[in-house]
Amino acid sequence: MTVSIAATTDVTSAMHAVGIAARAAAQVLARTGTDAKNRALLAAAAAIRSDAAIILKANATDMAQATARGTTGAMIDRLKLDAARVEAMAKGLEEIAALPDPVGSVAAEWTRPNGLNFKRVRTPLGVIGIIYESRPNVTADAGGLCLKSGNACILRGGSESFNSSRAILNCLRHGLVAAGLPEAAIQMVPVADRAAVGIMLGMHEFIDVIVPRGGKGLIARVQAESRIPVLAHLDGNCHVYVDGAADLAMARKIVMNAKLRRTGVCGAAETLLVDRACMATHLKPLVTDLLDAGCEVRGDAEVQQIDPRVKAAVEADWATEFLDAIIACRIVDGVDAAIEHIETHGSHHTESIVTADAATAERFMACIDSAILLHNASTQFADGGEFGFGAEIGIATGKLHARGPVGVEQLTTFKYVVHGDGQIRP
Amino acid sequence: MTVSIAATTDVTSAMHAVGIAARAAAQVLARTGTDAKNRALLAAAAAIRSDAAIILKANATDMAQATARGTTGAMIDRLKLDAARVEAMAKGLEEIAALPDPVGSVAAEWTRPNGLNFKRVRTPLGVIGIIYESRPNVTADAGGLCLKSGNACILRGGSESFNSSRAILNCLRHGLVAAGLPEAAIQMVPVADRAAVGIMLGMHEFIDVIVPRGGKGLIARVQAESRIPVLAHLDGNCHVYVDGAADLAMARKIVMNAKLRRTGVCGAAETLLVDRACMATHLKPLVTDLLDAGCEVRGDAEVQQIDPRVKAAVEADWATEFLDAIIACRIVDGVDAAIEHIETHGSHHTESIVTADAATAERFMACIDSAILLHNASTQFADGGEFGFGAEIGIATGKLHARGPVGVEQLTTFKYVVHGDGQIRP
Repeated sequence: MTVSIAATTDVTSAMHAVGIAARAAAQVLARTGTDAKNRALLAAAAAIRSDAAIILKANATDMAQATARGTTGAMIDRLKLDAARVEAMAKGLEEIAALPDPVGSVAAEWTRPNGLNFKRVRTPLGVIGIIYESRPNVTADAGGLCLKSGNACILRGGSESFNSSRAILNCLRHGLVAAGLPEAAIQMVPVADRAAVGIMLGMHEFIDVIVPRGGKGLIARVQAESRIPVLAHLDGNCHVYVDGAADLAMARKIVMNAKLRRTGVCGAAETLLVDRACMATHLKPLVTDLLDAGCEVRGDAEVQQIDPRVKAAVEADWATEFLDAIIACRIVDGVDAAIEHIETHGSHHTESIVTADAATAERFMACIDSAILLHNASTQFADGGEFGFGAEIGIATGKLHARGPVGVEQLTTFKYVVHGDGQIRP
Repeated sequence: MTVSIAATTDVTSAMHAVGIAARAAAQVLARTGTDAKNRALLAAAAAIRSDAAIILKANATDMAQATARGTTGAMIDRLKLDAARVEAMAKGLEEIAALPDPVGSVAAEWTRPNGLNFKRVRTPLGVIGIIYESRPNVTADAGGLCLKSGNACILRGGSESFNSSRAILNCLRHGLVAAGLPEAAIQMVPVADRAAVGIMLGMHEFIDVIVPRGGKGLIARVQAESRIPVLAHLDGNCHVYVDGAADLAMARKIVMNAKLRRTGVCGAAETLLVDRACMATHLKPLVTDLLDAGCEVRGDAEVQQIDPRVKAAVEADWATEFLDAIIACRIVDGVDAAIEHIETHGSHHTESIVTADAATAERFMACIDSAILLHNASTQFADGGEFGFGAEIGIATGKLHARGPVGVEQLTTFKYVVHGDGQIRP
């Protein structure tokens, strides 16, 4: 794409105007009570329902343009809205309204011998930048979660969903106005221009946190370019380890669910590790279940001997997030070899151990440095809703601030509020 | 400084070797129990006491070299060790040993209706990079805090304190060996070369967090260059606001302490804001106390009328961290004007309000976006020890992860540990 210097300057000024307005709105939101935020969310949900036809018409425009450009498959599916998906957005906003408000809650309180009373009070982060791709429903979900947590947000959706997102944004802004809140609390980047993303990633004076939602290319670009803290995960290369002490029936159920319940989610299992101690009894049923369900299995030499349908795994398979009905499978010598494999090839997202031996489970969970470790449960539970957080804006694998599902509580920071009666420091 | 390409390559390989060793040590430390870590800390404290003469001799070498280079004043004072400062390092390590171990503690636990039990368990961050200037005692403090929190650390002290720091490091490593822990848990950058800092700031595959300890130039450089998350504060431009409803005697005591107890700490007050509502009664005693104690007062026009010794404040004074016996002073129209001044000119570190009106105090504390807000207490309480955290590695003003004093708990992250009995996701 060729961008003239004049055009870039215009984009920069437009983006800075967005940043200034967001900062001002964030100051208002930080002082806004729960009731007003909930009123805005419920009014936005109502507006999405009453504007359903307008949203679907805008989406039809986006779909027609995308089809004309030759877009197909998963990309078109992500872009498409229908009555059920519009209703799901409205319902999602109502569910966010029903969540507890994290802002102002006291996460800790203590009093020192000198009488000073300390409170650690949750406060909004400030301004959150959301960069996403074709799914227009992210506009409603992300806008709603940021609003509930008292943050202003700057949304940068994919250009292919621009009309759909703008129609949804109108509903969100209707809600803000209805509740007497600043419209700039939820803004969309005004330009469908790739330069805008680069400018956004450099706006550290206006944006406190960036949350990218989309494919690996987007996440990698944001992580590489941004000087603003990023909450995200690059890969969800999740593992299931079936230990020698695993109940076979449980292992079969968990492996099938972890891999195949939905293959396109970040909590889907991508590698199955089977303990040599139960290879004779467990490996064949586990692999046969997967193969019979249409899953491609890429195995090491021992796994290949189980069934002629098993393909040979190559080294890269151990580090691949297939996001498809494909699983890598390897025999390991016990829990320590499983830990070693996961620490070497994993992405610090979500790992599950199936075992009846509690000590083995504790070792697995203590030694692996991933955001989520599960014992006798499917990796597909890696989801804010399943954690009880309500909606989530994504899953983070970084070590700072938030790890795992990022819900409204994870979109806050805190301040210390200290009450005294004249204390001075000796 | 001229660095040949060959020399830079050597520094890079040396630094990467340090990083690899630190990562390996971090894996061991993450699995190390409290007892072993405490044994290492206590053995290190004992070694510092028994090696006192060696440490002081190394320090004399550093002092002689610094003096020969013409170093004077505060820099020499920071560099200098004596018997009392050596003993303080040993005692500091013992105090760190006595702190509760944050690693493994369960910060939250809940069970979902499907029977899944969730625990949020504290874990070490991994590898922490500490970049500091001339104070050799940071070697012991930072090394001890990182060890207690289960983190490996890479220390890069100022070249002027190299011999002192190396002697202290020997004692820390003696402690590690005595407790059977890897020596690479605490490493010093092997080269007294400015290039090492730049390489360290780019080592995101080996270092999880950077903590800079030193002057504004160092912090600014680290924040500008690092792609690794930084826990730090650039400025401690702290304010005391004396409200119209302030008790005068309390206000006098707090203002004097906040400004003059120690002027070189980040929690020292730099600007005094006085409510117009109490100007007639409170301003003169507050300003006179400061002037009589030898503090320079830089006031607006109204403050200058109080005493001929008051100098005229210029715009830059409102944003300056003097770190000296100098204070800027201004009359404001009530709490909202105080909030506006602090949000405009402040550094989000620590602010105090003196008032007998609880509602005014709550407004001040709710509306200002600083890490620490105090009511009727001195800003000099901005310190991990005063918070009850034990020792601190610094104070952070960023919004992500840790804000305020950074003690052992703030040097941890967490993982979710989830126990089930065969749950799969519907």
